[in-house]
Amino acid sequence: MDITYHPIGVIHTPYLEKAPYQPVESDEGEFYLEILPEYVSGLKDLDSFQYIYVLYHIDRLTREVSMKVEPIWAGEIEVGLFASRSPLRPNPIGLSVVKLLRVDGNRVKTTGLDVFDGTPLLDIKPYIKDLDSKADANYGWVEKTGDLRHLALHILGIPHAY
Amino acid sequence: MDITYHPIGVIHTPYLEKAPYQPVESDEGEFYLEILPEYVSGLKDLDSFQYIYVLYHIDRLTREVSMKVEPIWAGEIEVGLFASRSPLRPNPIGLSVVKLLRVDGNRVKTTGLDVFDGTPLLDIKPYIKDLDSKADANYGWVEKTGDLRHLALHILGIPHAY
Repeated sequence: MDITYHPIGVIHTPYLEKAPYQPVESDEGEFYLEILPEYVSGLKDLDSFQYIYVLYHIDRLTREVSMKVEPIWAGEIEVGLFASRSPLRPNPIGLSVVKLLRVDGNRVKTTGLDVFDGTPLLDIKPYIKDLDSKADANYGWVEKTGDLRHLALHILGIPHAY
Repeated sequence: MDITYHPIGVIHTPYLEKAPYQPVESDEGEFYLEILPEYVSGLKDLDSFQYIYVLYHIDRLTREVSMKVEPIWAGEIEVGLFASRSPLRPNPIGLSVVKLLRVDGNRVKTTGLDVFDGTPLLDIKPYIKDLDSKADANYGWVEKTGDLRHLALHILGIPHAY
């Protein structure tokens, strides 16, 4: 069964050759979603949300997909692919939660997005407080690595040695 | 540009003809993701997470996609499609945050999923506390409708008149 999608736009980031592992609230350069003309009217009221989900096609990976991964920052721990946020997935759909800064015509300006410049955009969804923000969520196996501080550095985008 | 994906499994729910609008923490019937054999080893460690993201292909809709939508519970408010969680989207990728109850072989048992039985599964991702749970998220335009209570009923899956 083939499921075929088409980009609704393109993501612009300062990352031409290297992207961070997770979204970074960064002021280094611009991050914005550029929407195709036929979809621009669908952006109405989007700017009433603090956060949005950005869904995109991870198109720059050529390595083979493996069902076990070793997250680079987690030491020698091997976990199942679906227990990870690795971009190398059977269906390489990227998902990021970012702050919406401004909607300006066909451009949706956001905080840092961990993708290459030119990444095909698939969808934008509002992130709605009760539906999406789970106060009792946990860190799963990440907690076992004792490296929550490392994860936090990634999340905050603070440069650090590996 | 065509982007082609293939299901990694199928979603089982009690909803054969009618599905709720948003995930419901329901005990009425079973909700589980059935994973294809070649992907089962990718489920390792998934059960260390409280919540997961489920991504799926919304395959049962035949109505036309419109860039403006009137959410059924929001009265006569018209909002942009991307400011809504309407299933009628240019790329009908569904996204739900659900509680993971148990992983049993090739089955991932979850709390309520607002999809039809047989929906093609595209991806599973761990929902990681700091990355995905935004305490300062808001309700966007939903707040303006004064109908937060209604939204809450949907979220809690409490039956109510429209």
